[in-house]
Amino acid sequence: MTANISLPPAAACGEDATLYERVAVRISELIERGTLRPGERVPSVRKYATQEAVSIATVTQAYRLLEDRGLIEARPQSGYYVRPRRWTPPPELEIYRPKPQVTNVRVANLVMQVVKGSFRSNVIKLGATLPSPELFPARELNRVMASVGRRQPHASHGYLAPSGDPGLRQQIAQRAIESGCTLSPDDIIITCGCAEALNLCLRAVAKPGDVIAIESPTFFGILQIIESLGMRACEIPTYPREGVCLDELAQRLKECRIKACLFTPNFSNPLGSCMPDEKKRHLVRMLAEREIPLIEDDIYGNLAHGPTRPRVCKSFDDGGWVMTCDSFSKTLAPGYRVGWVAPGRFREKVEYLKWTNTHSTSSPPQLAMASFLQSGGYEHHIRKLRRIYAGNLCRVTEAVSRYFPEGTRVSRPTGGMALWVELPAYLRALEIHARALAENITIAPGPIFSAKQGFQNFIRLNIGNPWTDRIEGAIKRLGKIMAEMKTTSAGAIDN
Amino acid sequence: MTANISLPPAAACGEDATLYERVAVRISELIERGTLRPGERVPSVRKYATQEAVSIATVTQAYRLLEDRGLIEARPQSGYYVRPRRWTPPPELEIYRPKPQVTNVRVANLVMQVVKGSFRSNVIKLGATLPSPELFPARELNRVMASVGRRQPHASHGYLAPSGDPGLRQQIAQRAIESGCTLSPDDIIITCGCAEALNLCLRAVAKPGDVIAIESPTFFGILQIIESLGMRACEIPTYPREGVCLDELAQRLKECRIKACLFTPNFSNPLGSCMPDEKKRHLVRMLAEREIPLIEDDIYGNLAHGPTRPRVCKSFDDGGWVMTCDSFSKTLAPGYRVGWVAPGRFREKVEYLKWTNTHSTSSPPQLAMASFLQSGGYEHHIRKLRRIYAGNLCRVTEAVSRYFPEGTRVSRPTGGMALWVELPAYLRALEIHARALAENITIAPGPIFSAKQGFQNFIRLNIGNPWTDRIEGAIKRLGKIMAEMKTTSAGAIDN
Repeated sequence: MTANISLPPAAACGEDATLYERVAVRISELIERGTLRPGERVPSVRKYATQEAVSIATVTQAYRLLEDRGLIEARPQSGYYVRPRRWTPPPELEIYRPKPQVTNVRVANLVMQVVKGSFRSNVIKLGATLPSPELFPARELNRVMASVGRRQPHASHGYLAPSGDPGLRQQIAQRAIESGCTLSPDDIIITCGCAEALNLCLRAVAKPGDVIAIESPTFFGILQIIESLGMRACEIPTYPREGVCLDELAQRLKECRIKACLFTPNFSNPLGSCMPDEKKRHLVRMLAEREIPLIEDDIYGNLAHGPTRPRVCKSFDDGGWVMTCDSFSKTLAPGYRVGWVAPGRFREKVEYLKWTNTHSTSSPPQLAMASFLQSGGYEHHIRKLRRIYAGNLCRVTEAVSRYFPEGTRVSRPTGGMALWVELPAYLRALEIHARALAENITIAPGPIFSAKQGFQNFIRLNIGNPWTDRIEGAIKRLGKIMAEMKTTSAGAIDN
Repeated sequence: MTANISLPPAAACGEDATLYERVAVRISELIERGTLRPGERVPSVRKYATQEAVSIATVTQAYRLLEDRGLIEARPQSGYYVRPRRWTPPPELEIYRPKPQVTNVRVANLVMQVVKGSFRSNVIKLGATLPSPELFPARELNRVMASVGRRQPHASHGYLAPSGDPGLRQQIAQRAIESGCTLSPDDIIITCGCAEALNLCLRAVAKPGDVIAIESPTFFGILQIIESLGMRACEIPTYPREGVCLDELAQRLKECRIKACLFTPNFSNPLGSCMPDEKKRHLVRMLAEREIPLIEDDIYGNLAHGPTRPRVCKSFDDGGWVMTCDSFSKTLAPGYRVGWVAPGRFREKVEYLKWTNTHSTSSPPQLAMASFLQSGGYEHHIRKLRRIYAGNLCRVTEAVSRYFPEGTRVSRPTGGMALWVELPAYLRALEIHARALAENITIAPGPIFSAKQGFQNFIRLNIGNPWTDRIEGAIKRLGKIMAEMKTTSAGAIDN
């Protein structure tokens, strides 16, 4: 049977989505709401195309996308059907509330152990949030880099100014329109990846000993930077879907002298939360009134799983208090180490620190990136990545629900490359990490995501790998390791 | 007439010099000592080759080298003659003795003004110590980079480990033999240029507020790093030929709590001094006894004008207290931003800081550099650069003696790319800098080389440009600017 459907208006999907993505979103919403139920036939491609006055190709693409995400399935000679859900997603995570206190960060040794494991060869990488190498347009970038070298041999060997290549900055400024920003190329400084951008921002606005407000949980790289600069952290509870709890933040701002906030409002890592626009506006206003800089890590902003890229906090920033950091490491080429920062009112200070820290960012990758962006290949590539990650998220969540023990909870990210998993309390993430590494599987254990090494029974899984039997096998293996640990821990209690 | 010559043994020139360079050194010593006097004929190529049992090609190359350096000249149909010296080199600089005190460094704004001037297009660059772009093997490097991209498309796009590409580290370790070091690839960490290496070393061994001993004068980039990290400086008087005064250093070590030393023992910048081996050994011992780390900036070590590359302090370091920093920015490609550090006993700390600061150094330049070094092209290129700089030094010194005012003194560098010039006391380097920049000539004014903006009547000239009429014209123009300033200042006194 074919369901009788009534469609929401296309505009609800955001104007910048491609047509077929908008079609796909509408169908998936119908499935989510139960209008189209498991086993029911989806309207035929031809019929739906006529009904909506779009091309057959558009509907075909939309249906393929839904198939990739595991929502519908093709049956030979018969058409597309809503896929019966053979699994129930694990329950959702709840907000974690760390003690409201200022903390010295102590993660250095632990994180370096984990990081070094991830650089071993032949490991299955469920730890680092990195796309699998084959998802990068490596050949195209190499071709562009070779061509830039031929066209501008001296430019790619000489120093670029500390702020970076003007052509690249222009391309970045153009793309910032999509996230709601009006930036000029001069507002941007190119850095050696997002890591350097975050370092420079923190150094520009705070001193050793100063307190930085961060999300809880937060990316371990942010904790490391804060620790290495001798600053202290104040962890703010963060909603798994909507980001930092602003009431708690307001309370902390009253109680301790917070010098800056460092948040990832879009698809935070590891939660995958995305702060709604109104909340972003409120956050920016709240901090500007107190003249507290907001360092905004937007490295996952481009990786929305849905059709619309969320706005950045900077788009609500009139006073220049928001310093937005980003990079191409999650989308194009991590090894190029090309990131950037739009440091608002702290531009001069950041530029000076960039000069003293590394003088300038490597020239050939900057010039190649500028040329690649100008060619227009980036947008197409990003759309592809977003589709793949959305599909992977379903697959990884399904595998977790199948193989991980009873009592597991997971996040509901709407973008980015991470799934945050809460395991039953008797499991220890560091032990899982060690056992998995011995079997050449990396995961990111929860304790590295907190200043005080909390989240003992949490792990983060990377959804950036194309879905294969090898990946599914690794998740299954993790489940077995957990089951073995249950036996061991039960045995330990018995003795 | 042909002089009757007796040659010093070849061994005196160092065993690693090529044969023709050793021949050239012997002849130039004879000229320096007056054994061969201006206007005298040098032994004919054939005769000298027979006498020394070397090939005619070797002697021909040696004579061309001496011709490049302005020491001999060819007369048609007649052979080579010692060039009559039509100029007297300006008197040599003396040691400058700053007040023995610990200083807060305040150079940020001044240096950034100067740096930004140097990034203007169409300026004649006598400021930055940078080779002219045409001296780099740009096409070869581009070719290598394109080829690496084709052979290892994924390697050049993915992250490398924080310590860098093992192949590149191996090449660097091999070349360290020449500077007297026994290093393994694991002793080395690749950085974003020497600037990052110096930053990481300072952060590994000192905290904000700590005192760092530096040379006086010292490279402004070192002052900037110290300032940006909130550390303080203790400037140690430095001999224009033999480097830091060890007696003064010993005294300062007693008086103030020096946390680390940051010196450039080989061809310091701007003096061009080179510390003799015995003094290096003594310095290393003196600091190791007190457990004080020595951060050794060896960025110019490869650019000896003579045939022998000097040893590094690290070659005398048994205890791991020496942290040697270097880069390819002065020899191959500044814009690649590939440097490295051998941090001795501080390896783990430096590697951790490297990870937090920039994660890893850009992959494509590392892989290209490794491939270029392996091909053996580097040694040939370096020999060429050294010959050119040695020649340029003569030319620039000659031009200074011709065009700069009475009372000018200059350094006697034996390597590197800088000539340090002391002008008569009535001249102000910052004013010369401003006036020269208005005429599209950059120089590096003395005050940026001191924590307290001393050296008001000093300037540093870059000898990295191939000698052309345009360069000579620029030095002449500087001389005119100085003459105009004399008139103005005399006028000012009259009024």
